[in-house]
Amino acid sequence: MVDSPFKKTVLAYSGGLDTSVIIRWLIDTYGCEVVAFAADLGQGEELDPLEEKAKASGASEFYVVDLRNEFVSDFAFPVMRAEAIYERKYLLATSLARPLIAKAQVDIARKTGADSLSHGATGKGNDQVRFELTYKALAPDLGRIVPWRDPNWDIKDREQAMEYAAKHGIPVPTTVSKPYSMDRNMWHISYEGGILEDPANSPPKDMFLTTVDPEDAPDKPEEVEIEMHAGNPVKVNGKEMSGVEIVELLNTIAGRNGVGRADLVENRLVGIKSRGVYESPAATVLYAAHRALCELVLDREVHHYRLLIAEKYAELVYNGQWYTPLRDSFDAFINTTENRVTGTVKIKLYKGNLTILSRKSPYSLYMQDLGGFGEADIYEQGDATGFINCYGLPLMVEALAKKNWPKS
Amino acid sequence: MVDSPFKKTVLAYSGGLDTSVIIRWLIDTYGCEVVAFAADLGQGEELDPLEEKAKASGASEFYVVDLRNEFVSDFAFPVMRAEAIYERKYLLATSLARPLIAKAQVDIARKTGADSLSHGATGKGNDQVRFELTYKALAPDLGRIVPWRDPNWDIKDREQAMEYAAKHGIPVPTTVSKPYSMDRNMWHISYEGGILEDPANSPPKDMFLTTVDPEDAPDKPEEVEIEMHAGNPVKVNGKEMSGVEIVELLNTIAGRNGVGRADLVENRLVGIKSRGVYESPAATVLYAAHRALCELVLDREVHHYRLLIAEKYAELVYNGQWYTPLRDSFDAFINTTENRVTGTVKIKLYKGNLTILSRKSPYSLYMQDLGGFGEADIYEQGDATGFINCYGLPLMVEALAKKNWPKS
Amino acid sequence: MVDSPFKKTVLAYSGGLDTSVIIRWLIDTYGCEVVAFAADLGQGEELDPLEEKAKASGASEFYVVDLRNEFVSDFAFPVMRAEAIYERKYLLATSLARPLIAKAQVDIARKTGADSLSHGATGKGNDQVRFELTYKALAPDLGRIVPWRDPNWDIKDREQAMEYAAKHGIPVPTTVSKPYSMDRNMWHISYEGGILEDPANSPPKDMFLTTVDPEDAPDKPEEVEIEMHAGNPVKVNGKEMSGVEIVELLNTIAGRNGVGRADLVENRLVGIKSRGVYESPAATVLYAAHRALCELVLDREVHHYRLLIAEKYAELVYNGQWYTPLRDSFDAFINTTENRVTGTVKIKLYKGNLTILSRKSPYSLYMQDLGGFGEADIYEQGDATGFINCYGLPLMVEALAKKNWPKS
Amino acid sequence: MVDSPFKKTVLAYSGGLDTSVIIRWLIDTYGCEVVAFAADLGQGEELDPLEEKAKASGASEFYVVDLRNEFVSDFAFPVMRAEAIYERKYLLATSLARPLIAKAQVDIARKTGADSLSHGATGKGNDQVRFELTYKALAPDLGRIVPWRDPNWDIKDREQAMEYAAKHGIPVPTTVSKPYSMDRNMWHISYEGGILEDPANSPPKDMFLTTVDPEDAPDKPEEVEIEMHAGNPVKVNGKEMSGVEIVELLNTIAGRNGVGRADLVENRLVGIKSRGVYESPAATVLYAAHRALCELVLDREVHHYRLLIAEKYAELVYNGQWYTPLRDSFDAFINTTENRVTGTVKIKLYKGNLTILSRKSPYSLYMQDLGGFGEADIYEQGDATGFINCYGLPLMVEALAKKNWPKS
Repeated sequence: MVDSPFKKTVLAYSGGLDTSVIIRWLIDTYGCEVVAFAADLGQGEELDPLEEKAKASGASEFYVVDLRNEFVSDFAFPVMRAEAIYERKYLLATSLARPLIAKAQVDIARKTGADSLSHGATGKGNDQVRFELTYKALAPDLGRIVPWRDPNWDIKDREQAMEYAAKHGIPVPTTVSKPYSMDRNMWHISYEGGILEDPANSPPKDMFLTTVDPEDAPDKPEEVEIEMHAGNPVKVNGKEMSGVEIVELLNTIAGRNGVGRADLVENRLVGIKSRGVYESPAATVLYAAHRALCELVLDREVHHYRLLIAEKYAELVYNGQWYTPLRDSFDAFINTTENRVTGTVKIKLYKGNLTILSRKSPYSLYMQDLGGFGEADIYEQGDATGFINCYGLPLMVEALAKKNWPKS
Repeated sequence: MVDSPFKKTVLAYSGGLDTSVIIRWLIDTYGCEVVAFAADLGQGEELDPLEEKAKASGASEFYVVDLRNEFVSDFAFPVMRAEAIYERKYLLATSLARPLIAKAQVDIARKTGADSLSHGATGKGNDQVRFELTYKALAPDLGRIVPWRDPNWDIKDREQAMEYAAKHGIPVPTTVSKPYSMDRNMWHISYEGGILEDPANSPPKDMFLTTVDPEDAPDKPEEVEIEMHAGNPVKVNGKEMSGVEIVELLNTIAGRNGVGRADLVENRLVGIKSRGVYESPAATVLYAAHRALCELVLDREVHHYRLLIAEKYAELVYNGQWYTPLRDSFDAFINTTENRVTGTVKIKLYKGNLTILSRKSPYSLYMQDLGGFGEADIYEQGDATGFINCYGLPLMVEALAKKNWPKS
Repeated sequence: MVDSPFKKTVLAYSGGLDTSVIIRWLIDTYGCEVVAFAADLGQGEELDPLEEKAKASGASEFYVVDLRNEFVSDFAFPVMRAEAIYERKYLLATSLARPLIAKAQVDIARKTGADSLSHGATGKGNDQVRFELTYKALAPDLGRIVPWRDPNWDIKDREQAMEYAAKHGIPVPTTVSKPYSMDRNMWHISYEGGILEDPANSPPKDMFLTTVDPEDAPDKPEEVEIEMHAGNPVKVNGKEMSGVEIVELLNTIAGRNGVGRADLVENRLVGIKSRGVYESPAATVLYAAHRALCELVLDREVHHYRLLIAEKYAELVYNGQWYTPLRDSFDAFINTTENRVTGTVKIKLYKGNLTILSRKSPYSLYMQDLGGFGEADIYEQGDATGFINCYGLPLMVEALAKKNWPKS
Repeated sequence: MVDSPFKKTVLAYSGGLDTSVIIRWLIDTYGCEVVAFAADLGQGEELDPLEEKAKASGASEFYVVDLRNEFVSDFAFPVMRAEAIYERKYLLATSLARPLIAKAQVDIARKTGADSLSHGATGKGNDQVRFELTYKALAPDLGRIVPWRDPNWDIKDREQAMEYAAKHGIPVPTTVSKPYSMDRNMWHISYEGGILEDPANSPPKDMFLTTVDPEDAPDKPEEVEIEMHAGNPVKVNGKEMSGVEIVELLNTIAGRNGVGRADLVENRLVGIKSRGVYESPAATVLYAAHRALCELVLDREVHHYRLLIAEKYAELVYNGQWYTPLRDSFDAFINTTENRVTGTVKIKLYKGNLTILSRKSPYSLYMQDLGGFGEADIYEQGDATGFINCYGLPLMVEALAKKNWPKS
């Protein structure tokens, strides 16, 4: 046992083998009391048996908190409103669960009088950064214990973890381990590692849990209508629902039509490339609906600048910089125009395809007479002559100037 | 007839009603000789009868130039290499045909001793800008006649054009006019106007010419393997082909699987919103294959900066600023790393879906041992501790500093 | 006289020869009543005789409005807070006076029941754009009469304007005309045209009105202390003052020490290069003081992103896009962190030099123990090892990967 | 003595107390041979006695390499051409010396068969990152020993270093230590730490070595004429000189007129704020001259995009990412237009002021007739009407659309 300043630590607990082993390891290594904390983010796992498991593994206290509303309203939707997509493909869900879990963990630490925080993320991934940056931002006074990077940690693989569990009477999983790792919440499931590591390999067909293979999806398309108010979805198919209900319903609808998969080789913050496969059916539908309305209601300058901000916003979220002044500033920027992202979008889902059928907004800047070939007296075709003459003037000046340039 | 300085003008001629009428109108209004020039960009229309038509309409000379190779190599592929997509959806093909046509038109003007250039684009669209900016950049000394914005032009609609044609013995189309306008080249077909103007309407099913409706596509997926060398496709399914052949083949393959449609409300340069529907099957496949390789071979910093440049690059192309120093500078930037975009990508096409099955490159920066959960001695998990402490230091400093901030 | 829909127009009136002539020209050409409107932006010219002049020139009504407070608080200071500087040199004052004048002009039009707006800016500059974009944004229903671009306008130069004035009994200036044009408000004076057009020429020594030549400034440096609160200056040398008073005082102090000149060849919106010389003593001091505080209180990520926004913000302002959604969004971004730009900056002014002597803020993120060479337990030197290993990992991977790359 | 894999290490040696002590410490701790390597970057210190000192401290070999030409041509000038300035104030000289020293150090390691590299930078600064990233990029196979972060290092301050030196017979400095640390090369001197740490303090008057206090500079201004060719200076006052000679001469000229100081609180890469004071007289003059030519010869779009790249370029250099693909890509971008940055700039230097008196280039895009108030037939004033109507159309559409928006 190390000579430790920590008497009580709150562990982000998933109920899996790793975090169960970590409970015991913390007690044995740091001699501290362990509070197990589980966040309900709609991950669809059985949360019920967790308390028993945690206690059997040695936890002195156990808390589970339903964070689904907060997750959807304060994390998932703002990122969707910012149209943030990491490296053009990844909708960022694991990235945004971590800061919320860490924040709730800090709350539990305050409530239980703990002096430190712990998590089970490994030393090569992004999640450790996301947890710990949040700890630093929200609780700079609390200690941090990170088993996977701890010099006293010597469990190298699943076999050793199973052995350790057996030796300490920790309940072990009875199912066969999957040949990849997985993270699930209601906004997405991510898969990485194992057989996915070789980017020359396709993911196995049976890996996906929320989306059917497009080839197995129904032969008939399904239409869904999303109504948004101020950038957030408020109705599906005409029925008013909470954000959580909307996400759950759209996961079902889009999932059964095979919509919402992504597969990329991405750049991790810690300086390495990694292959990730994602399914996020509801998110995919909501991003598309939101964007379709943005096309109608945002003026070009805002729209184009938002595309630049979206890239940086996605980097911030991916890199764990959720609780940062820059993200606050971006939200302030984004929110100035979100109040007009109100309207209805009709979408067709069919065997992996998502097609916008229709979009309408009372705040539309689209003027049919202007964009089409009719006439409108606020714009004369002849105006284009002057416009082109000004707009093209630098090109003409350059072309003329070049004639007098020295030969070089 | 106006008192005109122009004796001979080269008209960008499509063979349609509008440009046929314009030939005669130019002769009658400006008293000039008209050289009709048609570009072969693989638009798939009958180019053979054009000469006869042009002459029948009054043209003194007629030229058709096969620009397909140049279009693919010097316009389409560089834009694909830059990953430029306008407003995240439009692959830009009309935008990049215009400067090439205009450039070839200038060449014809030089060859035929013409003193001016003319085109049939209207005064509300982007194409006029793309034509005329190229004229200004490449031939600042040549005059420009733009019928649609000309004070002497009084043909307001199709009926008047038909009348004018009948009156002047110009051959008129015998088919029924389509309820939208269309532009075609081998990189895409664009549709706009007419019944598409209302963004609440879906395009009619029979509008699309190169892609089948996903619902009508084969029930069996089709795999296609693209090999790229230095950012350009060189083989399809193992067979070496020219760029033109590759684009034509991929149009067929992706088209029959319903892949490559886009539908958006976009911001035109001239300050108005417009609804555009596009089909670009080959381009869609090539962008995806190129991107998949970029994920393997580009380091994060270059990759992320390219995403910013891609937005501006797309704006430049969309706005007709092809022949500009900034586009040259962007190409120089992009090309520094394209030499490593070499490798093979296997893609599955199925009823509108495009799925990357596999990607391989000899220049890959992906190291399986690093990204996964194995060990590699160039990176220790423990390094993450120091990384996180540095990376999170500003957050911690802010959190600590805040404790001493004045209450405000 | 043209057949005009306009019965009453409000003219932005400066009292100079041009706008005096325009009053009469409007009456004679458009047969409309002319309301002369002059804005007091602290331009230091005699505003008193304007009413008499305007009426003598034919104006039916005359209004002068003191806009100094609004100009400073709502235009000058927000742009300074955004650290917007056009092309790294120009502090933008004319650019931000125009939208305010135009806005006030619209107010007068509403009040007097006018149906149109007019200004005296020429057809080659930026000011016409700044006026008219504001008209369009705030009063799309009002007409616009722009004499300098009007087909009926045939006054080509000063001589013709003098003749026109003499003929119509318009009071003419008795002083000799300056060999350049000038625009003055309390935030700056700009000079352009005439002898300044050749960028190979220096401006004449006696041109500058608010700053002495550094060579003629006092031999003793002068210190000035600026106190800022939430990004705005509130005290100078310990004395609380209004924004207007601060700007006036700093113009005097910095001006007598030769601080605040700029001289550049800039890119106008209308597509041409132009040479501008500016003096903005107070603005120069306030930008520097604000920036010095930003260095203390902004975290790196916000600070660096603001530098990008500052470029675009400056373009917006320069280009007349004041009343646009994008500028609103930028302000929202900027203002999220301005509340902490509070503190005191001591500055030395000496013969054209501005030197920061000291900066202090209660919101400082600068921690002396961290930045220096002392010790602080939130950061261990050893952390840098892990940081560098992660941060440099992509470089190492690239170096290692290259060894296996094909020779090409 | 640790059990070390290293037999021979190359140390970046300055001749100061720290690196002298490090030679002995490396021998004693790692049991390895030490090659001392000193780079001549025009730092103006005595390089002659270094060999003797190094050997007396225990080095088995000593190398000094004159890197001045390479430093100026391949490091300083490219960064100047990119107009890269860190946080708007710092001209980056220390940042760009480090990668060159590290590169030369690698060359010496290859030549002498060393197996490792070492430097004397501390664990809180940027320089360690700049050294080590270069090591990783150029010599991933060589080991790295970093005394200041080494667990075996226990020298905490100057007193302990003096003791250690005395004990081991290492020559110690006889002069009094300065109350700040300093880094010098021909592009600048940087000062930080010690009495400079408090940002409320001004630097002491006698600290500056190359620039006189403006108050002590001559009462007469001095003019200097810079001729540039393709972005690089080639003549001063009409006399052709090498890059190194130009920098040395301009250091003298600008330095004696008090030009070239900067003082800021900057954001270090390692996550902390730090106060730096810099003097870089030649660099200041060359940046200003280069920029003055850019104003004439770069078109607006390139010019404005370069301003964005300049920010990121400066970050890269500051952060030690010299040998990275992104910097290569930026150089490719920049260099596309540098060939036209040719011309002559006349500058007045006076007591800290730098004033552009004149700029001329054969590649100028400035057309006097266009920018001024004369006439030129490639631009009609009336064109502005159409331009403004198009350019302002989105504002008008928004203003009109708003009238129909729902009240919210």
